Parts: sequence; structure tokens; C-alpha cells
Amino acid sequence: MNHDAIGVFDSGLGGLTAVKALNEILPNENIIFFGDTARVPYGTRSRQTILRYTKEDIAFLRRHPVKMIIAACGTVSSMLGADSPVNDIPFTGVVYPAAKKAAEVTKNGKIGVIGTPATIKSGSYETALHNMDSKIDVTAMPCPLLVHLVEYGYTDKNNQITRLAAEEYLAPIRNAGVDTLIMGCTHYPIIREIIADIMGEDVTLLSAGEEAARYAKLCLEEQNLLNDSTEPGHNIYYVSDSVSSFRENAKNFLPDAAHGQVFSSRI
Amino acid sequence: MNHDAIGVFDSGLGGLTAVKALNEILPNENIIFFGDTARVPYGTRSRQTILRYTKEDIAFLRRHPVKMIIAACGTVSSMLGADSPVNDIPFTGVVYPAAKKAAEVTKNGKIGVIGTPATIKSGSYETALHNMDSKIDVTAMPCPLLVHLVEYGYTDKNNQITRLAAEEYLAPIRNAGVDTLIMGCTHYPIIREIIADIMGEDVTLLSAGEEAARYAKLCLEEQNLLNDSTEPGHNIYYVSDSVSSFRENAKNFLPDAAHGQVFSSRI
Repeated sequence: MNHDAIGVFDSGLGGLTAVKALNEILPNENIIFFGDTARVPYGTRSRQTILRYTKEDIAFLRRHPVKMIIAACGTVSSMLGADSPVNDIPFTGVVYPAAKKAAEVTKNGKIGVIGTPATIKSGSYETALHNMDSKIDVTAMPCPLLVHLVEYGYTDKNNQITRLAAEEYLAPIRNAGVDTLIMGCTHYPIIREIIADIMGEDVTLLSAGEEAARYAKLCLEEQNLLNDSTEPGHNIYYVSDSVSSFRENAKNFLPDAAHGQVFSSRI
Repeated sequence: MNHDAIGVFDSGLGGLTAVKALNEILPNENIIFFGDTARVPYGTRSRQTILRYTKEDIAFLRRHPVKMIIAACGTVSSMLGADSPVNDIPFTGVVYPAAKKAAEVTKNGKIGVIGTPATIKSGSYETALHNMDSKIDVTAMPCPLLVHLVEYGYTDKNNQITRLAAEEYLAPIRNAGVDTLIMGCTHYPIIREIIADIMGEDVTLLSAGEEAARYAKLCLEEQNLLNDSTEPGHNIYYVSDSVSSFRENAKNFLPDAAHGQVFSSRI
């Protein structure tokens, strides 16, 4: 049993979808979130730059008492692959948990993946899925604009620009006849309604951040690291850019975060 | 007379529109360009973060022999306002040169401005225009998506997503009856055809980067700092992210840059 916090980080605010899921399934856990809002997005940068930023994000979280780290960012998780950047506490990215769930739920063996250009170029989800079942057919599409559309609040289900972009990105995946779609970037669940509308009701949508939260619970249970407090856990948010823009933009992701304890910290 | 280079920087690749203009009007000058591609965009970040990045960009350029510095970035220029970040060599941003030209060419006194959220929020162009003529009527619109659409190559004049975004941003400016539009971010001239199509042929479009290049020529002439070489000048490009993605994306801005001398440098 351990009262330390779970450390969660993301390039921007997408990782709040994982925080939201953690709050639901582990309500007594404390969370320390770091969003690198001064350098978002990561997914259109080079592997080398993303790995450098990742190292700095993890070093920032480790200055706090954390018992586990979650990279709640599809891009970071994809650059790391099967490597864990820490070896004394549990760590997870979002790729393995999301791929595991997708391999479990697919019936026709056809899975779609959407992510940032860096994520898709890395082939991370394909690698993870094929390690589970080499026969799975994967159709993956990079969606460079979606992170921005979500970060800037173009999230209404009737937003024409977001719908047009999503239709363009999703067409090849829909045409491939997938029955499962991994939303491989933690920003995408914010526009789940648009994605669901385009994919149709027969396609199961998986949120990489939510799956990572469920997987984190298993890790903590296995290692006997859950918090045995009966009090509700507490979230603290750190961002590398201003607090006010975080409060403004976080509304879409996790309303509590917009009103919560937020600090700006250079890393 | 001075053979040192002109230092030009931008958050990303937009500043190459200023480099292109410099090469045309001052063909014998050497240029050192820095694009902060590891941290682009600037225009959706806080003033404090933008000013910190600006300081670092200028410090980088000053490690090279430069006789003038151009902030070829509407956002940086707007955060600086009338302050010059260097005092021993000439400096210009893009706001004053573009506003000056707009005040000269407008006939009906109605000027439109498009820029990043940080630029528009700062009121930099209004301040500069009203200092020149307090009766000028300014309609300014923030265009958060356009930088990304340009950086990711959504630049074809028939691109539906870019057209839809531009139509939405430009509608209030068109409705205000302006006869002059300042493209206040150096990325926008890449989609000039789309903007021109929406604004109509009676509206004069001004490129902030081009105007800054013309203004730089005047500064260098006045201070007797022009290069008297009869050889063509040489461009050197530095970026903070990878060289390969610069080469890929620079094609849209300045084809020569894609094949030129490019180095990646952490700042």
C-alpha cells in the first residue's frame, strides 16, 4: 500500500483523458499531471526531439513522490516502444494497453489506428498488435491536424472543419472494414462523437488513455501499490506554459482540471 | 559596407517568406536563418513563454556574425511591440513595416489584419496603425489553425479544409469592407491564392515578411551596412528540430531552402 501519487504526463492536454479515467476507476489515488503546453505538439516533431522532451518530462515528475508513471501520450509511447524509461517504479505508455484491448475485442481481426504522424510512422501499434496476433490486419492513418483542432476547441460535433478533416483521415480505415478503431492519441476522445458518427455504430472505439488507466490499475494491484486511503484522491496539475490558458482549454477535457490546483513550471 | 550576414528568425518556417524577399531585393547579402521547429507554433502560447523563446532565438543568431536581425514572425514582433531586443545592431520585426505600408496604400481607411491568437490579442497592428493615423478602422481576426495548415502542407488552392478555415476567419474582415489586408503572420503568403480568392480582387494583400525585408533594406542603406560584394549572397539555415523535416516542409516556402545548407542545432 502506498500513498504516493500516480504521475501522468502528456505533450499537452490530451493526457487529461487518462486522468479522468484514473479518477473514475481509482478514486482514492492522488494524481500529479504534467502537460508540456509550452512545447505541444510532439507528434509532428522528430524522434530525437520527442525522446529528449520525454526525458525532461519524466525528470520533472520524478522530482515529486510518484509510485508509477503513465506516458498518457500516444506519440511518446510510440517513440519509447517496448523500452521503459524508468526501472525502479512501474511505467506504462498507452500503446500496449490499447493494442491489448483491441486484440481482445476485435471479431473480424481488422483494426484501425489513428495517431500523430510520429506515432503512425513508428508502426508502434502494428508492432504491438502483431506481437499479440500476427494475423491481425491493421490500417493506420496519421492525423496531423486533429491534435490542434482539439487543443483549440474545434470540438463541437457539428464543427465542419473538424468533421471534414476527420472524414478525410478516416476514409481509408472505414473502407478497410475494421470493426475496432484505436484512438491512438489521447486527444481524440474529445471528438469521439464525430469519429463515431463517421465510423458507424458497428465499430468499437477504444481510447488509448482510458486503456492505459485500466492497465495502470492492474499494475498497481499486482505490485501492491494501491492507496488504501478512504478519502477521495487529489489531483495537482503542472503545465510548462501559462495557467490561464490551461484553465481555458482544460474545460473540454476534464472540467475539474479547469478549476483545480494548477501551477506553471519551466522544465 | 559590411559583409556580415543578416540574421532572420521565426518560430517555424514562415520566416522563409522574408528570406525569399531578401534574396530578391538584396541578392548579394548573406543570410543566416533560424527556425525554431522544435517548438513551433509560438502564436498560441503565453506572452511570457514567447518572450523567453525570442530571447533564446536572438542569442542563437548572435553567436554568428550578423549585422542586423529580423524577427520574421508576427507573433514575436507583436510581443516585442516597440521594444528592440538588441541595441548595437539594427533590428526589425514585421509589424511596423507592414502597418506602415498598409497606411500608405489604403484608400478607404479600412484595414484588415489576420494573425495568430497572441498577435491579435496584443493589438500590435492596431497600435502601430493608430500611431500613424488614428482614424484608420482596423478589423483584426485571430486564425489559430492557419499556421498548422501551412506547416503541414495543406496549401493547395483547392484544399477544402484550408478554404473552409480561411472563409470562417476572413468573413468578418470582408464584411467590414476593408480595401487592404495585412497577412500578419509570415506563414500566410503561402496560401495567398486562397486568401485572395476569398477577399476579392479589390483588396490589396500585404505580406508582413516581404514588407520587413523591404524595410531592412532601408535600414541597411541608411546605416551604410549593405554588402558591396558583387557575388550572389549565401543562405545558411538552422533549425531546432530535424533537418529532414525542414527539407520536406521548406519546399512550400522557398524551394532553394529545401536543397540548401541546413543544420540542426539545439538552442
